[in-house]
Amino acid sequence: MKTIVSLLNEFKKIGLTRFDGVTRCVYDENWLAAQKKYIQIASDYGLYTFVDDIGNVYATTEKKLGRKAFILSGSHMDTVINGGPLDGVYGTLASLISIGTLMKKFGHPKIPLVAVSFSEEEGSRFNTAFTGSRYLMNNLADTVYGLKDHEGLSFNHARKNAVAQLKKLASELKVTGSIHAFIELHIEQGPILEKKGQDIGIVTDIVGQKKLLIKCYGVANHAGTTPMNMRCDAMKKAVTLIHQLYEVLDGLVALRYTIGQIRVQPNATNVIPSEVDFSLDLRHKSQKILDDAFTVVKELTELNDSILTIMTDVNAIKLSDQLANNSVLAAQYHNSAYQLLISGAGHDAQIIAKYIPTTMIFVPSIKGISHSPSENTQSDHLLNGQSVLQQALYQLAYK
Amino acid sequence: MKTIVSLLNEFKKIGLTRFDGVTRCVYDENWLAAQKKYIQIASDYGLYTFVDDIGNVYATTEKKLGRKAFILSGSHMDTVINGGPLDGVYGTLASLISIGTLMKKFGHPKIPLVAVSFSEEEGSRFNTAFTGSRYLMNNLADTVYGLKDHEGLSFNHARKNAVAQLKKLASELKVTGSIHAFIELHIEQGPILEKKGQDIGIVTDIVGQKKLLIKCYGVANHAGTTPMNMRCDAMKKAVTLIHQLYEVLDGLVALRYTIGQIRVQPNATNVIPSEVDFSLDLRHKSQKILDDAFTVVKELTELNDSILTIMTDVNAIKLSDQLANNSVLAAQYHNSAYQLLISGAGHDAQIIAKYIPTTMIFVPSIKGISHSPSENTQSDHLLNGQSVLQQALYQLAYK
Repeated sequence: MKTIVSLLNEFKKIGLTRFDGVTRCVYDENWLAAQKKYIQIASDYGLYTFVDDIGNVYATTEKKLGRKAFILSGSHMDTVINGGPLDGVYGTLASLISIGTLMKKFGHPKIPLVAVSFSEEEGSRFNTAFTGSRYLMNNLADTVYGLKDHEGLSFNHARKNAVAQLKKLASELKVTGSIHAFIELHIEQGPILEKKGQDIGIVTDIVGQKKLLIKCYGVANHAGTTPMNMRCDAMKKAVTLIHQLYEVLDGLVALRYTIGQIRVQPNATNVIPSEVDFSLDLRHKSQKILDDAFTVVKELTELNDSILTIMTDVNAIKLSDQLANNSVLAAQYHNSAYQLLISGAGHDAQIIAKYIPTTMIFVPSIKGISHSPSENTQSDHLLNGQSVLQQALYQLAYK
Repeated sequence: MKTIVSLLNEFKKIGLTRFDGVTRCVYDENWLAAQKKYIQIASDYGLYTFVDDIGNVYATTEKKLGRKAFILSGSHMDTVINGGPLDGVYGTLASLISIGTLMKKFGHPKIPLVAVSFSEEEGSRFNTAFTGSRYLMNNLADTVYGLKDHEGLSFNHARKNAVAQLKKLASELKVTGSIHAFIELHIEQGPILEKKGQDIGIVTDIVGQKKLLIKCYGVANHAGTTPMNMRCDAMKKAVTLIHQLYEVLDGLVALRYTIGQIRVQPNATNVIPSEVDFSLDLRHKSQKILDDAFTVVKELTELNDSILTIMTDVNAIKLSDQLANNSVLAAQYHNSAYQLLISGAGHDAQIIAKYIPTTMIFVPSIKGISHSPSENTQSDHLLNGQSVLQQALYQLAYK
C-alpha cells in the first residue's frame, strides 16, 4: 500500500490551482472526487465504508457497528480557497492508513475502529464552518441547509447531489453506537514544534476565540484649516484605544490577540477621519482569561466612547488528559521528541471534545505557514505522525 | 449690476453636478464657459480684458498697462471634483465687481487695478496645482505641459484649445508692468471665524506643509497559532509609532498634524499584518517649527525601524504686514468684526507672496466645511467681504 506521503501527493492534484494551491470546497467536483478516492482506498484496505447524510465518509473495521462503542479518528477533506496540500487531508488519510494497516496486521480490534473524512470544516463555500463534525454531534442548526454559496446555490441542494453520488459507492451502514474516543492528527499550522525541534505535539487545549469589531467615530474636516482643539479625530481615538488595549492585553499571560484589519473613512491624507474601525481577535485556552480579556476590552472601548460588536465567539475547550497520555506513550514508542501544546486554531476536535473524550496529535509545519500554497511539512515528520497515530489507536483498540 | 451673491448663484450652475456640487476642471467645457462669462461681466463694467497663454483672464481699468506697476486682485476659476460653489470663484468675482464698481464710481485709479481669474489652483485635472499663479510668477516647470489627465489628454493640448477660444474674446494686452501688490479674497474653509463670531479674517501667514508617507513592516502569520513572542506585527509597530508621534507633536505649539490615511496588508482579521503604511500631514506657519516637527518625526520613524517618504513639501510664507494693516482699516471702515489669522490651506497668494507684497482676506465658512457641496457662507458675509475688498483696493489705488 502507498505511504501517507505518496497519497498526499495524489490528493494535492485533486483541486490543484494555477497558484500551486489546492481548492476543494464542500460538495464541489474536486471534493467529490477526493471523497470517492477515499472510499476506493478504504476498500483496498478491506475496510467497510459508509456515508452519512451530510457527506461525511466513514471507513470501519466492522461490517456492522451495532450498538458497540467505537474509536473514531480522522479530519476534514475540504480546504480553504487556494489552500495548502496538508490541512485536513493529512489527518484524514493518515487515520485511514493507520486503521487499514492495523486491520491487516492484527485483524479485528477489541474496540471497533472507524476512520472519518469529515465533509467540511473550513467554511470556505458557505458562511458556516464545522458542518461535518457538528452534524455527527447532532449539533447542526437547520438554518445551515438554507445557506447559499457565491453562485446562489443552496447548501441543501449541493449536499443532496453530492451525497447521492457518494452513497452509490458505499454501504447502508449508519453511525448508531456511541463514540468511545476521538483522535485527530493535524499539521500544527504554527511555528512552535519546528522552533523547539520536536517531532510531535500533543494538544491539551483548543483555545477559545472572540472576534470583535470596534468602531471609533469622529468628524471629517479639513486637515489644514481645522485647529487641533476643534477636532474630533476618529484616528486619534482609535490609536489611543489600541495603544491602551495593547498595554492591558500584554498583561494577560498567554493571551493571543491580533488587530489584523483596520478601515478608515474617508481615508484621505488631508481629511480628519470621521470613522475608524478595527478587528480584535482574542484567543486563550482558559475561557476565564478569555472572558476577562473581553471584559477589559469592553470597558476600555466604552471609556473611549467607541462601539464594540462580537463577530465570533467560540468557547475554549480542554482535551482528554487520559487520551493525551496515550499519545505520549505512542510518541515514546516511536522515539519521537514530543511536547504538550495548545492549539490556537479551531479544529473538528473542538466540536467533538464537548461530548466525547478527544485528543489531537500535531506534526511540525515548516515556518508555521498554513492556509497557503506554501504550507508544508517534512516527509519524515508526516510519516512519523502517521506511525504515532497508528500506535495510539493500537494501544486504545487492541490492548 | 448684479451683487456677488446673485453672480455666485449663476456660476454655481456652470458645472453643477447631480450631487449639487460644482466641477470645473481647468480647460474643460464648464471652465471655458465660466471664463467666457467672466470676460462678459468685465466688459459690462467697461473694464479691459486680456488672456495670457496659460488661460488666466485679466480685467483692467487701463486700456494699456505699459510699464506701470499695478495692483492685482483675484483668485482661481477651477474647482475640485464635486466641490462647493464658493472656493476660488468667490474671490475671482468679488475682485471683478470691486474693480468694476470703483471704476464706475471714481474713474481711473492712481495705480492701475487688475482683476484676475486664475486658470487653475486645485490640481483636480492634472497631477499638479497652482499652474495659473505659477505661470504669472514665471515659476512653472516645463514638465507641466506634458502631464496627462485621466483620459490621456495632455495639459498642453487642452491648454492650447481652451486659450485659443478665450483669446478671440479678449484684447492682445500682456502683463508687462510690475505688480505692486496682490490681494486675494477667499472663504476661510475652516471654523475659526464662525466660532469667534467674526465677519472678516485677515491672513498674516500661510502655513508650510509636509505630507509624509510612513511604512512599517512585519511578517504575515496566523493570528491563532503564532505565539506573541514569535510575532513581527506591523500593526503594533505602526500604532506604537503613531502613539509616540501624537505625544511629541502635541508638544509643538500651533502645529496642525493629521493622520488621515492608513493601509494594511493583508488586512484580514485572522492574519498578523505584514505591512502598515500611513500618511502624516504636518502644517505650521513657522517654517522653523515645521522643520523641527519633521526632524522629530524622522528620528522617531528611524528609531521604530520604519521608512519615511516625503510626498509634498511647501514652505511656510509670511504675508505683508503693511497690506494686512490696509485690510484692517477697510474692515473697520465697514464696521466689521475682524481678526488676524493664519491660513491652514494653500492658496494662489502663497505662490505670489514669495515675490510680491501679498495679503488675503477671509470670510467665515459655515461649519468650516469646504471642498464639498455643503460648502457655504452667509449672504451678508459674502456681501461684506466684497465690500471690504473694494475698500481695501480703494485705499491702495485711489488715495
